[in-house]
Amino acid sequence: MRAWIFKGTNQPLELTEVADPIPAKGEVVVDIKASGLCHSDVSALEDPDWIVNFPKLPVVLGHEAAGVVSAVGEGVTNVKIGDRVGIPSGPPSNIGYFRHGAYAEKISIPSDVAVKIPDSVDFIKAAAGTDSGNVAHHAVVTVGQIKPGEKVGIIGIGGLGQIGARIAVLKGAEVYAAEPKQDAWPLAESLGVKKVVSDIRELADVGLNLIVDFAGFGTTTAGAIDVVAEHGRVVQVGMGRLQAEINTNSLILKHVQLLGSMGGGVEDLAGVYELMATGKLNPALSTTTFEEIDNGLERLKRGEVKGRLVADLQ
Amino acid sequence: MRAWIFKGTNQPLELTEVADPIPAKGEVVVDIKASGLCHSDVSALEDPDWIVNFPKLPVVLGHEAAGVVSAVGEGVTNVKIGDRVGIPSGPPSNIGYFRHGAYAEKISIPSDVAVKIPDSVDFIKAAAGTDSGNVAHHAVVTVGQIKPGEKVGIIGIGGLGQIGARIAVLKGAEVYAAEPKQDAWPLAESLGVKKVVSDIRELADVGLNLIVDFAGFGTTTAGAIDVVAEHGRVVQVGMGRLQAEINTNSLILKHVQLLGSMGGGVEDLAGVYELMATGKLNPALSTTTFEEIDNGLERLKRGEVKGRLVADLQ
Repeated sequence: MRAWIFKGTNQPLELTEVADPIPAKGEVVVDIKASGLCHSDVSALEDPDWIVNFPKLPVVLGHEAAGVVSAVGEGVTNVKIGDRVGIPSGPPSNIGYFRHGAYAEKISIPSDVAVKIPDSVDFIKAAAGTDSGNVAHHAVVTVGQIKPGEKVGIIGIGGLGQIGARIAVLKGAEVYAAEPKQDAWPLAESLGVKKVVSDIRELADVGLNLIVDFAGFGTTTAGAIDVVAEHGRVVQVGMGRLQAEINTNSLILKHVQLLGSMGGGVEDLAGVYELMATGKLNPALSTTTFEEIDNGLERLKRGEVKGRLVADLQ
Repeated sequence: MRAWIFKGTNQPLELTEVADPIPAKGEVVVDIKASGLCHSDVSALEDPDWIVNFPKLPVVLGHEAAGVVSAVGEGVTNVKIGDRVGIPSGPPSNIGYFRHGAYAEKISIPSDVAVKIPDSVDFIKAAAGTDSGNVAHHAVVTVGQIKPGEKVGIIGIGGLGQIGARIAVLKGAEVYAAEPKQDAWPLAESLGVKKVVSDIRELADVGLNLIVDFAGFGTTTAGAIDVVAEHGRVVQVGMGRLQAEINTNSLILKHVQLLGSMGGGVEDLAGVYELMATGKLNPALSTTTFEEIDNGLERLKRGEVKGRLVADLQ
């Protein structure tokens, strides 16, 4: 099969022929049909201080995969050959980081991270849901414990935040957004958000039950704690800055919960696919080809891509 | 009856004769047998910026009460005349702040805040449990959700922290303490704490599942977030400083929960009494008389009191 190999920071990705993976015990091989390109990989390629360590190089990059099961190892019972599956990015499988990833024609994964894709969801959408969708779902639903009818604030209408806001709307919440860039406001409104403001502090009167901070600029964390309602939850996802000066007085007197959220699990990806199957969760997408993955990452780096960029291998 | 009346900051408490309370619908009158003196009242007496507002003055101070039900209002079914009860400090009743308090011979309270005292717990201990006991129980048990066998860190072995540490030990946890004042270390050890250090950061290798910060100096919150185990909980109770510069990186990457905790409820006081009834929760106590409450507060202010000071009205 062909795969894009990463040898280290400041070295170009190389498209090369490698041996097909053979499924070990408990593993399945998936023929990749769509593979999402992520800005994290731009960082891996050019930033020697990038937060994620690669324990073993070279490695196949890519962690946003959807495809068809083509071989199953011993002891696998949850999926079978021919099943359409997506793979959650990050732990526990950590494809594209700690084991070979999805910028390849095939991938071998532990079978318990394979999440079945509903018939009505195509591979491109399914791949796009594995990372930003999964992470946003984990923050809003699994950690945030969103409930219908709640008032929910979303900070940051970037790649993650816009999916988070849409998930919150689809879960029946009354959703508000805080986004300093006014050119993102029409997008926020198109997602079903009731009101968009520049700063979360402008929503002090709303009585937000849950605030999910996808920006993480310190001041956003602090603002969220100050304006959230009594017994409110603040979920911290974004890491724009790594320090936050918070008001512990607000935290204590209002019994606030500040909850760190990272990644997502198979339940989250299943939740994303369930919402996608309703036809109402449609992140902005554009596509490229497998052979153009290196150029696609360059375009991501230059900020030229609108929506998630997915390589189509069908 | 006699009661100590608070007229405002920088005015002396006045012991005076007032009308006996009559229980309204849903209320009971409790003949006070023991009334704890709290440093909060020192603040009320002398600090014009004291955080608690008194909506109506004059008011009877005192919020650590235990006694015997002597009259019941219409519709009361949960307690009867002759029952020995304690009253949780703070919300929802807010005795001694928003309604008349316990520096008096009698008090009228909503019957649903009356918590029955087990026979083996005397009134002095029962009164001492209503505030620091209740608040510590809420932080460690209700908010902290302590589980047997967990590794638990307690920051600050002051009035609250020592009860919190003891509750944690009695709940079957492996308890560690962080306290900069070395003269408090023997006390911490006597409570069953496994190890005492100066700074919570020295416990980085332990893998603490739960840290309860009774000090709240900002740096303690930040340290707790940095050293708590993955998926750990940090409960913030102490308000030594009102700002904390926290590392959101630790919070997110370890999926940490930072939980504000304030006050406690009737379930917490019932939990404290249950532990006291085992004979194993014995906060340090000293006693004074009802007539000496003003002097007792002066002694508290001067730091001359060891353990909780309780006025004995028996």
